[in-house]
Amino acid sequence: GSTGQRKWEHLRICTQNDVTFEKSSGFECYDLEHQALPERCLEEIDTSTTFLGKKFNLPFFIEAMTGGCPGTETINQNLARAAEEMGIGMGVGSQRAMLDDPSLAYTYQVRSVAPNILLLGNIGAAQLAGRHGKAIAGLIREIDADGIAVHLNAAQELCQPEGDKDWRNMIVHIKEVCTAVNGPIIAKETGCGIAGGIAATLESLGIDALDIAGAGGTSFTRVEHHRGASLAKAFFEWGIPTAASLKQCRCAIQIPIIASGGIRSGVDAAKALAMGASIVGFALPLLIPAMQSYQAVIDKLTQFASELKMAMLLAGAATIQGLSATRVVE
Amino acid sequence: GSTGQRKWEHLRICTQNDVTFEKSSGFECYDLEHQALPERCLEEIDTSTTFLGKKFNLPFFIEAMTGGCPGTETINQNLARAAEEMGIGMGVGSQRAMLDDPSLAYTYQVRSVAPNILLLGNIGAAQLAGRHGKAIAGLIREIDADGIAVHLNAAQELCQPEGDKDWRNMIVHIKEVCTAVNGPIIAKETGCGIAGGIAATLESLGIDALDIAGAGGTSFTRVEHHRGASLAKAFFEWGIPTAASLKQCRCAIQIPIIASGGIRSGVDAAKALAMGASIVGFALPLLIPAMQSYQAVIDKLTQFASELKMAMLLAGAATIQGLSATRVVE
Amino acid sequence: GSTGQRKWEHLRICTQNDVTFEKSSGFECYDLEHQALPERCLEEIDTSTTFLGKKFNLPFFIEAMTGGCPGTETINQNLARAAEEMGIGMGVGSQRAMLDDPSLAYTYQVRSVAPNILLLGNIGAAQLAGRHGKAIAGLIREIDADGIAVHLNAAQELCQPEGDKDWRNMIVHIKEVCTAVNGPIIAKETGCGIAGGIAATLESLGIDALDIAGAGGTSFTRVEHHRGASLAKAFFEWGIPTAASLKQCRCAIQIPIIASGGIRSGVDAAKALAMGASIVGFALPLLIPAMQSYQAVIDKLTQFASELKMAMLLAGAATIQGLSATRVVE
Amino acid sequence: GSTGQRKWEHLRICTQNDVTFEKSSGFECYDLEHQALPERCLEEIDTSTTFLGKKFNLPFFIEAMTGGCPGTETINQNLARAAEEMGIGMGVGSQRAMLDDPSLAYTYQVRSVAPNILLLGNIGAAQLAGRHGKAIAGLIREIDADGIAVHLNAAQELCQPEGDKDWRNMIVHIKEVCTAVNGPIIAKETGCGIAGGIAATLESLGIDALDIAGAGGTSFTRVEHHRGASLAKAFFEWGIPTAASLKQCRCAIQIPIIASGGIRSGVDAAKALAMGASIVGFALPLLIPAMQSYQAVIDKLTQFASELKMAMLLAGAATIQGLSATRVVE
Ligand SMILES: Cc1cc2nc3c(=O)[nH]c(=O)nc-3n(C[C@H](O)[C@H](O)[C@H](O)COP(=O)(O)O)c2cc1C
Ligand SMILES: Cc1cc2nc3c(=O)[nH]c(=O)nc-3n(C[C@H](O)[C@H](O)[C@H](O)COP(=O)(O)O)c2cc1C
Ligand SMILES: Cc1cc2nc3c(=O)[nH]c(=O)nc-3n(C[C@H](O)[C@H](O)[C@H](O)COP(=O)(O)O)c2cc1C
Ligand SMILES: Cc1cc2nc3c(=O)[nH]c(=O)nc-3n(C[C@H](O)[C@H](O)[C@H](O)COP(=O)(O)O)c2cc1C
Repeated sequence: GSTGQRKWEHLRICTQNDVTFEKSSGFECYDLEHQALPERCLEEIDTSTTFLGKKFNLPFFIEAMTGGCPGTETINQNLARAAEEMGIGMGVGSQRAMLDDPSLAYTYQVRSVAPNILLLGNIGAAQLAGRHGKAIAGLIREIDADGIAVHLNAAQELCQPEGDKDWRNMIVHIKEVCTAVNGPIIAKETGCGIAGGIAATLESLGIDALDIAGAGGTSFTRVEHHRGASLAKAFFEWGIPTAASLKQCRCAIQIPIIASGGIRSGVDAAKALAMGASIVGFALPLLIPAMQSYQAVIDKLTQFASELKMAMLLAGAATIQGLSATRVVE
Repeated sequence: GSTGQRKWEHLRICTQNDVTFEKSSGFECYDLEHQALPERCLEEIDTSTTFLGKKFNLPFFIEAMTGGCPGTETINQNLARAAEEMGIGMGVGSQRAMLDDPSLAYTYQVRSVAPNILLLGNIGAAQLAGRHGKAIAGLIREIDADGIAVHLNAAQELCQPEGDKDWRNMIVHIKEVCTAVNGPIIAKETGCGIAGGIAATLESLGIDALDIAGAGGTSFTRVEHHRGASLAKAFFEWGIPTAASLKQCRCAIQIPIIASGGIRSGVDAAKALAMGASIVGFALPLLIPAMQSYQAVIDKLTQFASELKMAMLLAGAATIQGLSATRVVE
Repeated sequence: GSTGQRKWEHLRICTQNDVTFEKSSGFECYDLEHQALPERCLEEIDTSTTFLGKKFNLPFFIEAMTGGCPGTETINQNLARAAEEMGIGMGVGSQRAMLDDPSLAYTYQVRSVAPNILLLGNIGAAQLAGRHGKAIAGLIREIDADGIAVHLNAAQELCQPEGDKDWRNMIVHIKEVCTAVNGPIIAKETGCGIAGGIAATLESLGIDALDIAGAGGTSFTRVEHHRGASLAKAFFEWGIPTAASLKQCRCAIQIPIIASGGIRSGVDAAKALAMGASIVGFALPLLIPAMQSYQAVIDKLTQFASELKMAMLLAGAATIQGLSATRVVE
Repeated sequence: GSTGQRKWEHLRICTQNDVTFEKSSGFECYDLEHQALPERCLEEIDTSTTFLGKKFNLPFFIEAMTGGCPGTETINQNLARAAEEMGIGMGVGSQRAMLDDPSLAYTYQVRSVAPNILLLGNIGAAQLAGRHGKAIAGLIREIDADGIAVHLNAAQELCQPEGDKDWRNMIVHIKEVCTAVNGPIIAKETGCGIAGGIAATLESLGIDALDIAGAGGTSFTRVEHHRGASLAKAFFEWGIPTAASLKQCRCAIQIPIIASGGIRSGVDAAKALAMGASIVGFALPLLIPAMQSYQAVIDKLTQFASELKMAMLLAGAATIQGLSATRVVE
């Protein structure tokens, strides 16, 4: 189908072009203070945490990327096996294609290779309109996920000629999903970030966690521009940088936050966690590895894990909780 | 005549050289906050507004550019037909040539192809000296305009060897025009912007709206330099950036403001409107299209309109009034 | 003599190499606010002023540059004839060579071609040691100058292997000169600027005016580096930028200030005057013209004069006094 | 041995590659105010000082660099002879190799050529674990040093696959060394700087001086990256810039501070001394000279000394104490 084709195009564009924001995620403005006397040993650094009731070995989440057309099942499975082995969570890409054509479910089904991870389904907020909570619950059930991430990607959709242009009643729809569905509901952006006020609204609707997906990493208006969306150009830099969005949201809400959007090293991750994120999410940096092998994904995540541990030790934090309490210097 | 020749030279220079300021209009320092939950549909975004008593489909104005020598009538007509079709306003270029040679009136006459638009004549403030209000009223009448824009372009004139060097009594002359002429009088710069104090003086003289035409877009000292004005160089960057000028004027006056000077997308337009402009003006970006066809002008304006609508939706504003009330983040 | 040779080397180096600071004079941080309604005519802009009792047609001063070896008399005479024609002041270069060899006086003697200008002699503060006030008075008399500028150029001297290393008792020596000499005494730097506190000390010694010669224009540590002074490198950027020095001195003292060091246009000049300088000085920009012809010097000064007048009109100032009272925007 | 091999690799990498931070030491943000009237003579500028009870002709220290494998004795001796001749202090490189293989002692032994200097041994804090204070005292005695510098280089070690990963109990170990060893104990970083709080802890343990070795000069994560440590990349810019670290430490502690890390001229040195350092340290700039001849080291140090004297004179300070009391302008 056309959604499937678009999905492949996205993957091709994201691997062959520069699709990142010119402006940065903002984390270079914040520093963890070097502790010349760390008083820790690397082995004792404990990166485990709990997120939405599941134990994580690392405060990492593999952001939603793909599914919905033949061939993408390999990518999702590579990601899932890596997530299982690393003890982290993962989201599948938008299940919209599956709503139209249920036979595509297999491209998202990764539970068999990742029995223990926090696994999240994914659906666009714009797709909630006119659908029963049941249908959404079905998406979760079909892939044996724990919950679902509802993505808010208005900037991207508006740039696509075929994109969703109607963003009314999202509040009502999200509230319905929160009521109808068992298991955690996450609201996420896809690279434009979430302002503090919007975060507060989303929290009040009953979502369980927020994935800010701020500006500074993958820019979907750039992706769409590569697909021919000429209007996208004026919006290349539209969006709230991840660090700024994180600061706003951390003040505005109580529920846990996934910081994503331009997290490119374990040092970035450590800063985001010190600034109040519960876990951090990676999309683009895992895409090429995921197209290669599950081992390649593990290698990349292992690099991020090592960097995180080193940063924790050098910042004097032995646990994720300790890191949360660590001051960042502006 | 020599004014006519100069006019063509201006057009040639503006289309073949980089004539924009090095410094920016300043809008990149202001952001509309991304609303991940827009709660609007693109169709319902209403860009219509009222300006100087006329209904506008879009808060756009085609800035004064040309007229006064044979051939420019096509450019003005392409602009006018596009304005009519898009439901926006337009100004013709300086009618000075017409004062000297009334037979050139036809190069400015566009009412037949644009019966409904807000159409403004144009004359330099320096040309008001020694002329009766009647003569100015005549300029309006001859082209069946609604009113006239009086441009203040001292920096440009001083750089031209043949330019006006006498800027005395402009206050008196403008006041006279305001008294003598029926229909709206606008005061405008041509790329150096207007300070808050000057805006207040102009308002007190009875003008109906202000077009700030600030620094950051077309730099007329650069244009004149291309024509051989060596003194212009020290003034390439002279002028108040559009965003700064807009901020000052919005505090200083009550009359409506046209923000122009370096508005280069519907996103820039949305920011200017949120910062207090009633409508925004475009000159340079429409010049090449206007030399091609009226359809090319429409295409460019349509692009700006789409970008504006998208920016409004993403900023959570459904109407121009709503956009005016939207906070910009510095 | 060796001083003479050094002088030619300086001229050669200054004309063939980039000897300007990397850091700027700082004037780009200050703006004169554009007055879209200037209410002046260019002709009425009056750039005349009085400085140290002499009438100036323009608030310009030709900074000390040369003299002291055969051939430099032409340069000084070109400068002097231009100064006379333009109605501005001028300083000759250091008269140290003349102290050693009085027969070189002719290289500094320009009074015959410039009967009416404010003409200043020049001597290094380090050369005052062990010399009677009489000797200094003699330097002035020999060239029929009005007074003398005592230059403080410690950074330059320290970098020269053969330079003066003893800067003790300058305060005493300058005070003696002030007492012994009739006619105005000016203290000047040569490109490192003068701090507010030093300015206050100098004023208390009885000097009549201060020439700040700040950082941002000619860097004499660079000049000396081209002559082989390897130690100069660490001091390429040493010194107080002209705009900063001007701000400090204007607060600290009452006597008139010459702003020099990186003044490169009439717009720079206008800013310096608005920031409190009585007149501005140019050295480097006049060097190549002065080596060509007196007409070339006039052409350059005429350019600066035109730019100054334009800037005054556009900033709404009709007189130098008016310009002094004009606000600069940071 | 493998430590020895690594040592040569370090020297090779440091001489053949760019191993400096991208971010600067921060001293370019601080200026000594130019004193146009210095009232000093260069000869009278007294750069002598006392540090840890020894007389220094210059406030300079040759930072720890090498020793521990055959051939490095020449480098250390060149450094030591130069230190003796210049009347400054010096540290040998890490004596770890000597702990493993006492026969390597000769590579560090320089006392015969530098009988009078403050000579410091060097050992990693991580090597203190499981060793008696006696062993450390032995390191000092074996090379006839005055005391020892304990380096804290966690970032570097973590990046090395073979590096120390256990940084627990450093506080206890350092305290033990302070108790067990006669003669001064210095704590130093190796390019990541020391935060104020850590400095206070170190002072409370009884160390005699602190060498901040901040970010902005040699980056050991870069060095390790050249040796193949891929994880080092995320830490290239990790660390507190020297100027910032100096400011923090100067407020936090009373004991003398060596400012090192990116000190690259006598002007940098003068700024650091004005900001509260007792002496300054140089490593990288002396490495290539030390591999050439002791005269080359003297030449480099003489350059720094001349620059320091000039900067002192131009800043109006006649003594190191006077310089300490000199204000820096931000
Ligand atoms: C190739 C690709 C496909 C994506 N597809 C989805 C998607 O289907 N649903 C979704 O919510 N986000 C999607 N995203 C957005 C990511 O989940 C993430 O929020 C965003 O890319 C920011 O992270 P990054 O900078 O690490 O890439 C996609 C991202 C990429 C790179
Ligand atoms: C080719 C050209 C001709 C212009 N001629 C006039 C004119 O005759 N009268 C006038 O008031 N402004 C004139 N302008 C100035 C514009 O109306 C406008 O104020 C200015 O260019 C700033 O807008 P921009 O940055 O979008 O070009 C002209 C601009 C251009 C580019
Ligand atoms: C070639 C040259 C020679 C100079 N010689 C002297 C001199 O003899 N005495 C002096 O007081 N200043 C001398 N100066 C310094 C200038 O008078 C002036 O203070 C300084 O160059 C800053 O102005 P600028 O940036 O416009 O060059 C000389 C400058 C130049 C460029
Ligand atoms: C080649 C080289 C080897 C070094 N070896 C040691 C060492 O063994 N022990 C130590 O404490 N520091 C060592 N350092 C660090 C320096 O002592 C110093 O703290 C640091 O390089 C910052 O100074 P710089 O920027 O002037 O190089 C070494 C530095 C270099 C360049």
